[in-house]
Order: sequence, then structure tokens, then C-alpha cells
Amino acid sequence: MDGQRTEISSLGEFGLIDHLTKNNETRQAGTLLSVGDDAAVIDQFGRQTVITSDMLLEGIHFDLAYTPLKHLGYKAVAVNLSDIYAMNATPTHVTLNIGVSNRFSVEALDELYEGVYAACERYNVDLVGGDTCSSLKGFVISVTAIGEVAPDKYITRSGAKKGDLICVSGDLGAAYMGLQLLEREKRIYMEHPDVQPDLQSRTYTVGRILKPEPRADIVNWLQENGIVPTSMIDVSDGLSSELLHICKQSDKGCVLYEEKIPIHNETREMALEFNIDPTACALSGGEDYELLFTIPQEDYEKITRSEQISVIGYITEAAEGAVLLTKGGNKHKLTAQGWNAFE
Amino acid sequence: MDGQRTEISSLGEFGLIDHLTKNNETRQAGTLLSVGDDAAVIDQFGRQTVITSDMLLEGIHFDLAYTPLKHLGYKAVAVNLSDIYAMNATPTHVTLNIGVSNRFSVEALDELYEGVYAACERYNVDLVGGDTCSSLKGFVISVTAIGEVAPDKYITRSGAKKGDLICVSGDLGAAYMGLQLLEREKRIYMEHPDVQPDLQSRTYTVGRILKPEPRADIVNWLQENGIVPTSMIDVSDGLSSELLHICKQSDKGCVLYEEKIPIHNETREMALEFNIDPTACALSGGEDYELLFTIPQEDYEKITRSEQISVIGYITEAAEGAVLLTKGGNKHKLTAQGWNAFE
Repeated sequence: MDGQRTEISSLGEFGLIDHLTKNNETRQAGTLLSVGDDAAVIDQFGRQTVITSDMLLEGIHFDLAYTPLKHLGYKAVAVNLSDIYAMNATPTHVTLNIGVSNRFSVEALDELYEGVYAACERYNVDLVGGDTCSSLKGFVISVTAIGEVAPDKYITRSGAKKGDLICVSGDLGAAYMGLQLLEREKRIYMEHPDVQPDLQSRTYTVGRILKPEPRADIVNWLQENGIVPTSMIDVSDGLSSELLHICKQSDKGCVLYEEKIPIHNETREMALEFNIDPTACALSGGEDYELLFTIPQEDYEKITRSEQISVIGYITEAAEGAVLLTKGGNKHKLTAQGWNAFE
Repeated sequence: MDGQRTEISSLGEFGLIDHLTKNNETRQAGTLLSVGDDAAVIDQFGRQTVITSDMLLEGIHFDLAYTPLKHLGYKAVAVNLSDIYAMNATPTHVTLNIGVSNRFSVEALDELYEGVYAACERYNVDLVGGDTCSSLKGFVISVTAIGEVAPDKYITRSGAKKGDLICVSGDLGAAYMGLQLLEREKRIYMEHPDVQPDLQSRTYTVGRILKPEPRADIVNWLQENGIVPTSMIDVSDGLSSELLHICKQSDKGCVLYEEKIPIHNETREMALEFNIDPTACALSGGEDYELLFTIPQEDYEKITRSEQISVIGYITEAAEGAVLLTKGGNKHKLTAQGWNAFE
């Protein structure tokens, strides 16, 4: 190591991945798309396979104090399927690796697997393998999903064109507010174990963080309505971060209208209660697992037929940058931290 | 959980996997082989894809006190490729998920990736994706490998026939002795930091544990010589455990000749030094990543042409059990613990 030490935090997650994979070589003729999108695409004699993999670590991605194991199993599969759908592909198989310490019982793992099987059933995929090992401490789950896509019909992050409309499914920021609520109720419970957490009135936001659903329905709807997105990504890290991925990889800029960003009423109410800007939740909250995509302007009429899809902006030249137009008429440069509103 | 608590240890690793997957359903018509072999096999319009996934956890599978990160990266890929070769398939792609705490520097991860890339280059596979996340503590690596196999040419654990010859590549037990040596030198170093570990004279066994090579060469040789194994598995948990997998899944028994088990001279010498039975190392040591397979008797002549392959026994009816014939002429029932010689 020659004595030099560069902190991982100095590069950030995406900087680190860029750094580690900058010399990655492709040897297989079938590798159509490698590191850097929601999933990789492999051509196997004309059939195209999509593959993605995600890891969930206890204490980083989930807190078992308020995450039922069944939900965790469901979510571990769901977030990987979301990446497959974001490629315009259909998931078919998953593998599941888990590392557990002896503080977990067989019954606890049964619950986890119940959730895994429920997600497999709901999305018609098969669990075909994996690895079960003991860990010294902490729970680790790693899922790999594979799927198939008609030849060359996969959609990357890099195809957005100037003038394309930016669309997003569902609503944003709810998972983040659900997490804030669960964290608050956990703190209250730690201090006053006799107080029962009140989550009943907040089932939407809590459901969004604990049991996300990948948007298979949106991919199907787009196909049925003959709309082919020019780029697509799933919203796991927040709208800002994902939109910037599309802009960077398409070498484009964008204008995003704050007033067009879809936010659920419960999310707004809770943001108010927590004294957080609802727009900031949508921009930087993450874990919504909605689909963000761009379409040609001529599909505008068609896209308005879906109540599940919002048009939230448009693609510009790269030189114009990535811009948020606020409700007050101000322009903000879009950053991966959602114009630092979280500070 | 209804108050009941079953300890994971009461089921054991394989019992746990059986328990968790006993109700696993197959929905996809393309799923030819699911949980329970070295890898799953998926048919995609006539092309067959093989997929496997393995996780390595710090403190369980490796100790960074004596595991160079470059070797660790190499091994994480190699052990997954070994599972692909054990299906008689050719690996083509891998994904890599890592969880690291901030005690690791970018330079440390560079070393890990150097090893990953070295294995990819050596075995002609592409790294096409994965997930990099921070962990609270400890290093986690999860690799998924996929490969391809000519239609219906994959080899499972369940095809062994009565009278088939049991064959194994290379030699066994060396990785286990390498691990014992590294553990001993670590203890000495902890107590006397000024004493330099002496590993120079033990490069074979130490190399076997730190940098295993999957036996691509054996799969190629078998194909070139027209030998089609009736069953195959890679030796990750020790000869006993793997042979019992073949017997159980083929519903057969076996006779294993102790004197035929291939053991390297260095392994024997070290076993002597450590006061361990060399046969026990081979039976229960694990991590050798050799190929264990069965062939029809008529291929005996052919198989003897390879100096890399030993015939170590034969397959019998299930009722005859799994038996080890010792050098002294005694019969022992083969158990996954290697007739408990490790106690």
C-alpha cells in the first residue's frame, strides 16, 4: 500500500465505484452492458440476460428494532427486481446469500424466507440458489436477480435526448418520512418502553420504507401503450441523485419543476410535522423504488393517460446544467444532496 | 415466532438449507435445476445458463491478519468459478458485492480488486456489476457467477450409478494444513511480534488456502478425452461431505479406499508435525476446490492417462452405506466429520 491512505469517504460511493472499475476490461463478446447501470446485459446467442446484485447490511440498510424479518426478506428481493424492471426487463430468477449470527433462531429465518417467497410469488420469479453462513455479528443479505429482455430492448441510463420529457412513477419521499417516523418511535420506545408506538395513522409512509414494491406495472403499461423510454433508472437514492445519473450518462442537462414532483399527502403532512421540506424528501430521501425515465415529447399525450406517471421536467443540453425550478420561480443547481436542504 | 426457538446449530448448515427451501416452488418453465447443487441451471430458449453465489465473511471465512486482500479478491471469484466448473459449465460473468467499514482505505480496496481482476483475466470472465456499501464492522464479500453449458450437458450431484468409479482431481487436505500453519504463525506473532513467520518452506499448503484455483483444466481434459462424468461436485467442505452429497442425491452408497486418497507430501509432513492424521485432513479439511466426480467403469483406461486424476473408490447400492476402507483393512462408516478423527 506504499504507506499512502486515501479515505473511502473522500471519493463517495459513486466515485469509489468509478475508481475501482475504471480499468475493468471486457473479454466476453456477449457483454453488452457492464458496470454502471441498474443492471448488466449479457447476450447469449441472441437472447439477452439482465443481471443485478445488491447487498443489505444490518445497521446500515435496516434496523431490526423496527423491521419485521418477513418484510426484510420481501424487500431484499424487491429492490433487486426493481433494478431489473428499470432495464425494461422481466425478472425470472434470484439467488439469496445470508449471513446470520447465532442470536437468530430457525423460526426467525423462517419469517425472513416467508418474505422472500412472498416476493418471488408476487413477481413470478424462482429462488434458485444461494449460500447460508454464520456471521460473527450482524445480519447480511445479498441477493442477485437475473431477468430477460427482448433483443436490444433493454433501456439504459444513457439514452436521454434534448427535449425529452422527464417522467416518474408513483410518488416520492414517502419512504424517507416512514423511516423518520420509525426512527423517532424507536427513540421514544428506548426511553419509555411502556409507550406503544403510534404508526396506525401513518401506514402509507411506513409501508413504503418497510415493503417497497418494484414497478412491474409501469413497465407493462409503457409496453402496452407503445411508449419506449429513451432512458430509465429506479429511484433508490433519491430523485436528484438518479436524475443526475441520467444527465451524466446521457451527457445532458435538465430542468426539473418543483411543483410537478409527486408527493403523497401523508408525506407532506409528516414532513410538516417533522419540520422538513417535502421537496427535499423527494429529492434526497431515497428508497422509493419508483421508476424515473425520459420519453420523446411526441409521447406526451399518451403518458397523460396514466394517473401513475407524472411529467416533472425536460432534458436540455449538458451546458445548461441540471436545474431545479422552484415554486417561487427560483433556479437552483440540482445536486445529489438535493440542494443541501437536509442540513 | 410463537415463543418457540429452534437453534440454527441444531439443524446444521445443510439441514438448515433443506428446512428453509423445502417449500420452495418453481414457477419458471426454464428452471431446470434449483437449490441443492453446485449451481442452478436455467434454460433460456435452448441456451442453458448456470448461476451460483457465495458469500465470504471476515472472521468466519477469512482472517485479514494473514490473508492479503489481493488473494482474498482472487479467492472470492475463484470459489464461485469452481462451482460453475463443477456443473461442467464455462463461467462467463461475475458480479461482486462488498461491504467495508471505514477502517479500509481506497488503496486496500484497490488491492482487493487487483485480485478480482486477476482471477477474471485468468479464467476469461467479465466483472459486470455489483454493489459497494459501507459496513459498521467487518468485511463482507458476496460474488455471483454465471456461466453457460451446452444444452443438457450440465452435470449434477445426482447421477452416480452403481459400479461407477469415484475420481478426484489434484490432492486433498493441503488447504486445511495451510490454514493450521497460518493460524499457528498468527498466534506466535501475537505473542512475539519480533519473530518473523516461517512460511517459505510451506508454500504449497499456504498457497492452497490463500489462492485456490478452480479446476477448469480438468473439465477441459474430460471433454477432450470424451469422458462424461455421471455426477460431479467441487470439494469445498472436505471429501467426506462432498461424497456423501453425491451418495445422498444419487441414492447410492460408496466404498472409498483410504490408500487411494491423493495427499501431497508437504501436507503429510505438516500433518505429522501438527500431530493430525493426513487422511482426516483430506476427508474433513475442506477448501481444496478440487473436483470430485464419478465415471462409468468402462472409462477406467482413459482416466488413468491423466496424472491429475485419482480413482479413489466406487459407487454401491444405497443399502451398503458410505464406507471408508482403511489402510489397515478396517471398514469405517463415512461421516461428514470424517469419522470424527478431528476430535
